[in-house]
Amino acid sequence: MPQGYAMNGGNGPQSYAQNSSYQRGAVDVAKELIKEEIDKELDVKQLSSTSVHPFRIADFGCSTGPNTFVAMKVIREALEEKLRKEGLASEVPEFQVFFNDHISNDFNTLFASLPPERHYLAAGVPGDFHKVLLPKASLHFAHSSCSLHWLSDVPKEVTDNTSPAWNKGKIHHGGAKKKVLEVYASQFANDLESFLNARAHELVDGGLMALVIPAVPDAIRESQTTIVTEKEFEVLGSCLMDLAKKGLVDELKVNMFNLPLYLPSPNEIKTLMKANEHLNVQRMEILSIPGKHVVFSNPSGIALYLRAALEGLLEKQFGSDIMDELFELFTQKLAESSSLFNPENQDMVVIFVLLKRKLRT
Amino acid sequence: MPQGYAMNGGNGPQSYAQNSSYQRGAVDVAKELIKEEIDKELDVKQLSSTSVHPFRIADFGCSTGPNTFVAMKVIREALEEKLRKEGLASEVPEFQVFFNDHISNDFNTLFASLPPERHYLAAGVPGDFHKVLLPKASLHFAHSSCSLHWLSDVPKEVTDNTSPAWNKGKIHHGGAKKKVLEVYASQFANDLESFLNARAHELVDGGLMALVIPAVPDAIRESQTTIVTEKEFEVLGSCLMDLAKKGLVDELKVNMFNLPLYLPSPNEIKTLMKANEHLNVQRMEILSIPGKHVVFSNPSGIALYLRAALEGLLEKQFGSDIMDELFELFTQKLAESSSLFNPENQDMVVIFVLLKRKLRT
Repeated sequence: MPQGYAMNGGNGPQSYAQNSSYQRGAVDVAKELIKEEIDKELDVKQLSSTSVHPFRIADFGCSTGPNTFVAMKVIREALEEKLRKEGLASEVPEFQVFFNDHISNDFNTLFASLPPERHYLAAGVPGDFHKVLLPKASLHFAHSSCSLHWLSDVPKEVTDNTSPAWNKGKIHHGGAKKKVLEVYASQFANDLESFLNARAHELVDGGLMALVIPAVPDAIRESQTTIVTEKEFEVLGSCLMDLAKKGLVDELKVNMFNLPLYLPSPNEIKTLMKANEHLNVQRMEILSIPGKHVVFSNPSGIALYLRAALEGLLEKQFGSDIMDELFELFTQKLAESSSLFNPENQDMVVIFVLLKRKLRT
Repeated sequence: MPQGYAMNGGNGPQSYAQNSSYQRGAVDVAKELIKEEIDKELDVKQLSSTSVHPFRIADFGCSTGPNTFVAMKVIREALEEKLRKEGLASEVPEFQVFFNDHISNDFNTLFASLPPERHYLAAGVPGDFHKVLLPKASLHFAHSSCSLHWLSDVPKEVTDNTSPAWNKGKIHHGGAKKKVLEVYASQFANDLESFLNARAHELVDGGLMALVIPAVPDAIRESQTTIVTEKEFEVLGSCLMDLAKKGLVDELKVNMFNLPLYLPSPNEIKTLMKANEHLNVQRMEILSIPGKHVVFSNPSGIALYLRAALEGLLEKQFGSDIMDELFELFTQKLAESSSLFNPENQDMVVIFVLLKRKLRT
């Protein structure tokens, strides 16, 4: 996957832009925490002493909007508020916002949706966020919401029929054997380390990073049970196998396909973050998206939500002709199991982490 | 035109990417001049004293590639060569390249075409280059090739039926009355001033800017005659009027449509550049694209070249259904006048200008 994968582009009925209200909920719950942390942790006097420089913000995994615009507005306004509080209002710097996502992300839609009254200079940065994307010590605030659970790639072992982690007939570790979960967890750990090191390169000394990561509660991960979202991936895999049995997709292609998605647990996140030598964890909170989000209350809602996120990947492997049938079958199967679309059963949580770049020596 | 206009996107047979060999010629003739000027004019010791900073380059009016990648490679390599010559090779900085064009430019195609071995960090900057797009004093080298003849908008007077510059039944000043040429020239002067001031804001002290501008020789502009390219615009306008007479397009729409394009003369450029208080003209040369470029040697070549550049604008006004017929008719009309496709008659020149940002006081 040299160009990575991206959420559905455009503004149509199956687009990410129209089907990302769950992710919007994550932005909303993090909003107050981001404001508090900017107020508490950011040394604006130090940062604005280099007055000629703009204040640079980046969103990693921005997709096509509109959620990224909401998050960037929150950050910019919190920074301005902080400057006012410190009596530096006359020195409001220029803001420059970098919107990052995979090369295959629909940047055309993103750019066409940029709010006209945005009060910042905008730039798009195409590329894998597990690598360095911005110059050394050039970034003041990094943000990433609902993106870090996307792996840089599928763990090699799961498509290797000689490996104990071979994931035959399944497309995710949900419902698979223990070894599969282990290689997913290990891929996530490597990816998070790469992400943190890349951001540590880019952030200025004292620069902040706010991360919002969809996650599995510790008790569930430690008991190696499966949350509802992972069960849904399992159902999606079984739909592909059904289509394979009907001869509509190649079974070999199902065996070779796995979703590059891993939901970590808070304990995993804590351990991995603390291991980074360049960044300090200033705050970590486990949040739940308020109101057991409406998107999960019916099978069609879940199907649209997952289609907007996964269709690009599925199309690449199975072609676009089969997509309607796949998601119809998926919706049917969900409808047969009320536990899968009862919002009360939604056990996914969200982790908020605030990190600060240590001083370079 | 809130989102401006752009060259044809994608990589198809009518795309800019496949029909921009003339513009590539302009990049090629400017190459050696850019290398010489970087060697002569750039104070790398001063610039690299702020060693933590990356070296930032921007291309204004980049379109979809591939020409912009050629130009950026030339600039990056010339900078590295200069650093080597000055014994600063060990301090090669990170390079960050900003690719700018209108919001409606096909950035997806641009990003998908980024050379894998590019040795720079890439970002896209959507927006009108007559405004500030990058932070103050953040840019070391600005580049723009074959873009500045695109106006920010059509001069208002030409679509105002109460104005002496009303351009009824025509789509450009080519072949129109003197007043029309004057308002085009005046719009160009305002636009160039806005462009230079925006870049003066963005460039670091001592930063360089290389501009390549398609132009009309002084003698032709001063005698108010018309170069072949402008005559082609006149023919294109007459084709639209023919379609209007056939009832295929609305004549009122032709009256309200004008191309936002003006080719300045070297004297105009010289005067406008010298008037800018923030930038010094270090070098100015009149160049011709070598070999009377092959694109101009047959009617179909000219039609494709102009279609790749103008179709977006024409479609917005007249709809896409009419485009094939319009360009077929245009090709026919060109074929009837050999003077319009004889490369020997190509009297368009190209102006190379190298400017340097004055020190801020």
